[in-house]
Amino acid sequence: MTTYRTRHGGTLRADDVGAEVQLAGWVARRRDHGGVAFIDLRDASGIVQIVVNPDEAPASSEVLRSLRTEFCISVTGRVRARPEGTKNPEMVTGEIEVAVAILDVLSAADVLPFQLDDRFDADEVRRLKYRYLDLRRDRMAANLRARSAVIRAMRHVMEERGFLEVETPTLVVSTPEGARDMLVPSRLRPGQFYALPQSPQLFKQLLMVAGVERYYQIARCYRDEDFRSDRQVEFTQLDLEGSFWDQEGVLDTLEAIAAGVVREVRGVDIPRPIPRMTYNEAMTRYGTDKPDVRFGMEIQNLDELFADSEFRVFADNMASGGTVRGLNVGNQGLSRTGFDKLVDQAKDLGAKGLFWMVVEQNGSVRSPVAKFLRSEELTGLVSAMEAQPGDALLVVADDFHTAVGVLGQLRLDLGQPARHDDLEFLFIVDFPVFEHAADGGLAPAHHPFTAPVDVEEMRTSPDTAISKSYDMVLNGAELGSGSVRIHDPEVQAQVFEILGISQEQAQARFGWFMEALRYGTPPHAGFAIGVDRLVAILQNEPNIREVMPFPKTQTGADPLTGAPGRVDEGQLEELGIEVRADVKAEWSASQTDAVPSESS
Amino acid sequence: MTTYRTRHGGTLRADDVGAEVQLAGWVARRRDHGGVAFIDLRDASGIVQIVVNPDEAPASSEVLRSLRTEFCISVTGRVRARPEGTKNPEMVTGEIEVAVAILDVLSAADVLPFQLDDRFDADEVRRLKYRYLDLRRDRMAANLRARSAVIRAMRHVMEERGFLEVETPTLVVSTPEGARDMLVPSRLRPGQFYALPQSPQLFKQLLMVAGVERYYQIARCYRDEDFRSDRQVEFTQLDLEGSFWDQEGVLDTLEAIAAGVVREVRGVDIPRPIPRMTYNEAMTRYGTDKPDVRFGMEIQNLDELFADSEFRVFADNMASGGTVRGLNVGNQGLSRTGFDKLVDQAKDLGAKGLFWMVVEQNGSVRSPVAKFLRSEELTGLVSAMEAQPGDALLVVADDFHTAVGVLGQLRLDLGQPARHDDLEFLFIVDFPVFEHAADGGLAPAHHPFTAPVDVEEMRTSPDTAISKSYDMVLNGAELGSGSVRIHDPEVQAQVFEILGISQEQAQARFGWFMEALRYGTPPHAGFAIGVDRLVAILQNEPNIREVMPFPKTQTGADPLTGAPGRVDEGQLEELGIEVRADVKAEWSASQTDAVPSESS
Repeated sequence: MTTYRTRHGGTLRADDVGAEVQLAGWVARRRDHGGVAFIDLRDASGIVQIVVNPDEAPASSEVLRSLRTEFCISVTGRVRARPEGTKNPEMVTGEIEVAVAILDVLSAADVLPFQLDDRFDADEVRRLKYRYLDLRRDRMAANLRARSAVIRAMRHVMEERGFLEVETPTLVVSTPEGARDMLVPSRLRPGQFYALPQSPQLFKQLLMVAGVERYYQIARCYRDEDFRSDRQVEFTQLDLEGSFWDQEGVLDTLEAIAAGVVREVRGVDIPRPIPRMTYNEAMTRYGTDKPDVRFGMEIQNLDELFADSEFRVFADNMASGGTVRGLNVGNQGLSRTGFDKLVDQAKDLGAKGLFWMVVEQNGSVRSPVAKFLRSEELTGLVSAMEAQPGDALLVVADDFHTAVGVLGQLRLDLGQPARHDDLEFLFIVDFPVFEHAADGGLAPAHHPFTAPVDVEEMRTSPDTAISKSYDMVLNGAELGSGSVRIHDPEVQAQVFEILGISQEQAQARFGWFMEALRYGTPPHAGFAIGVDRLVAILQNEPNIREVMPFPKTQTGADPLTGAPGRVDEGQLEELGIEVRADVKAEWSASQTDAVPSESS
Repeated sequence: MTTYRTRHGGTLRADDVGAEVQLAGWVARRRDHGGVAFIDLRDASGIVQIVVNPDEAPASSEVLRSLRTEFCISVTGRVRARPEGTKNPEMVTGEIEVAVAILDVLSAADVLPFQLDDRFDADEVRRLKYRYLDLRRDRMAANLRARSAVIRAMRHVMEERGFLEVETPTLVVSTPEGARDMLVPSRLRPGQFYALPQSPQLFKQLLMVAGVERYYQIARCYRDEDFRSDRQVEFTQLDLEGSFWDQEGVLDTLEAIAAGVVREVRGVDIPRPIPRMTYNEAMTRYGTDKPDVRFGMEIQNLDELFADSEFRVFADNMASGGTVRGLNVGNQGLSRTGFDKLVDQAKDLGAKGLFWMVVEQNGSVRSPVAKFLRSEELTGLVSAMEAQPGDALLVVADDFHTAVGVLGQLRLDLGQPARHDDLEFLFIVDFPVFEHAADGGLAPAHHPFTAPVDVEEMRTSPDTAISKSYDMVLNGAELGSGSVRIHDPEVQAQVFEILGISQEQAQARFGWFMEALRYGTPPHAGFAIGVDRLVAILQNEPNIREVMPFPKTQTGADPLTGAPGRVDEGQLEELGIEVRADVKAEWSASQTDAVPSESS
């Protein structure tokens, strides 16, 4: 195959016995037995056992002395059947081994900073510093392969369906009032900046204006927000958009993508069609717009049961327009302290309180609030929640969003399967056009380019108006979202007006885009799927860093290369910018701390 | 197909006569004839003629009044054969037309800023400002499709050959002494910067250390240099690398890529194998390392002919180790003034002078220097240059690189075919390891990670030592370059030493990379192909901006969105940087100029 090998070691089988082969790879493991070295040789195809017997390959004995784990070697030898009793049915190459005649070291390896066969020992910063070793682990190598396969499967669906791959620019304009942009100073225009794109949203809409009709891209995007465990500054999405297209067309294509990806990576077919749930139904049953439907434990509406309750908390809540919702979390074996923690957690999540009940073996209900409830209420509760002896019931009386939101979070904490091979895709549809922002005003629930179902309804009832937007959810994670876009510049202007964005502001931020809409813009719709999250779920990885080749830490650093770093003043000179004096002063101060002067 | 159409208009044929269809697209052209409107309806599939007769579709007459070019419309109607005499054999849909029953405007269009059917009228800044209209032109739409097809074809070869697609990071470390990086200030580490990658070079080599064995990526790269007509700050390359791989393996894969791409875009097979030429041969015959071999006009070595010339210039040049090279540029019909311009051009290119001769009808040679040359020299020259009557001969006496370099440039100016469907791929091999930098020291001819053919030769004869590097050339353009890399940290250290990079400097710039080489790095090699240039050549486009969806101008601006722009001081606050006072002062000054105060 190359000058370095004639075969990949991991592909050798009993059929190859007798063949002379040249292999190349890494020493994954070495055992010495009676002067003979048994080496697991690893290459990209897998592992094969090679046997170096100094009697048969005298020149190898000196090489053997220095040979350590992760040396890169090349061997020539003959494939032979393993002696009976030493065959290993767990390995695909377990029936054979290669008797080595020539052993060459292509490249030596220093003593490793951590062992490669038990990833959980090394801390993450250390793993990232030596990512090139970390990625040699089976699981990490499998993650890289899965990521490549996911993207390949996505592309195949896109190609089959006639989507054009178009690369949108990554040095774009910064929109002054938008979310935080990553900025790139311009040298040809000192003091001015490009932004890195948070998504190709406006460019893909421009492509629709340009008549592309079907666009896709595996797009690198950038989001400068405070890191959480599952976010990275740069991330990858499958971005797609189509003209003369509507929600049905988009969802049909998304389903084909999901099916193609799962078939490629897991080798199974997902149940089709992918179920749909309205935003309202998802909130009511699961308290979230991204429900994990791998398990039940649904939120129950207890308003009817407690409609005329004499329990003061329920009555007051009802009187102020609130609702009572309950959750049967099953037999969690919780102690009083355990329940107290749940109460605290519910309060942290914004609830005024949380009531808990346990169904005793005799069917009675034990609860600190049992005494405030009538016995019909207690038996009605057990019945409404379909509770069995031992089950714990959690009840929140609050406004709708708080009640379902808190119970929805407790449902996940207490019920979500940790590792679970099931894949439950779900489309959430009929999102509201607007949601209430922290300042009490309206904010777009998706983004301000999302088409309302009915323009008149959007104007007259902005609080409840429904938009043509939709999310794709997998196992309780939002994989992506999309919408039918506004293609009428008048409707776009109305949305800005309802959002309280003045014509001048809209012009300053999006004038160039609003103008584009004036040249025969086709009706269009689209979507974006987060690749990192999807691959992580398919690979049962708890965080996306495990499926990114070279991720940053949660503080945005790369322990391997040292990025980000300080740069020369000269590099900034041409850009018309400088590091602020107070920041430089801090640097000097910390340097002084680190290297105390001799006189101190 | 969707709620907006049942067919793509451009796919209708005589077979479809009688079918009721719904179409959607844009009004490409409208002619009115006896009250009937004939409209060329354009969608992504092509153009079809639709006929709106207000007698047959009364509701359409009002719509027709307002209908202008580039309105986005939807029509329902019946396919019918065009009347004899009105069929258009130039159009694939020319046998039929669609008689419209219902005509709806999906989206109106303002009067266009420029006409879409003659691109050469609009200036480029205007085209870029309205890129979404510019891309509706047939040629630009074809360029977008070709770009997508090129990348798809590349990927198919990579997938067939088992390459893993891996996304390397785009927020990387800035190497202080390297070429100009585009910088990205970090918010979590104020005053520090990431760089955007000039290429994924070191990360792809790390992937080899990581055991990936075959990697590829369609990578966005960034180069902050002064713009030339064919450069952009951001550009795209097919980046690939392999372990246990060598030059033969790389070239074989590159050939498969070239063949796959040309087959996909042009529908033809390129001649295989792709010819190879050493760097020395290319320089000698064509005066460049990226020869355009679509035409001959090779540079001739005239040293033997003029070995004992009495012409002072030749003799002196010979004595100082120089060479005499000639070029038969054929019958260019040049006047005395024309030749004088060539002489000036040669001097601008660095030659001490340029001699020209014209072969007369009678075989004699006319030249300002004819009188200094012996008649055997003149007849020998005609013979050596295989000159015919009318041919013009250009001769340069200078050091080798100047002589062939100047003639090589004149060869292109006088001989290169402007538009020419031929595709002449070529591999240039055996580049030197080092070249002389402007400061007289040595610089890596490729990059400092390129393996020498012979380490000992590199140490003892750095001036002439050959490296394992290679370029791919198409029609005189360098499509890309690659090399076998250094995988031995000791050899890498020696290269840095020869380049005059101290151990401390090497450690500061590449320490993390040098360390990676210490852990069993496999022998590896790779390449990168510039996608923009390749697509431009395949599409016969003079500059790469024509094949980029949203390019920047030559000063790095986007006339459409206004990028780059000034940003809020608040946006910079968190980043620990500020725009330099002198730059802000200039802004204030120019604002004062632009908006004079009332009192002035």
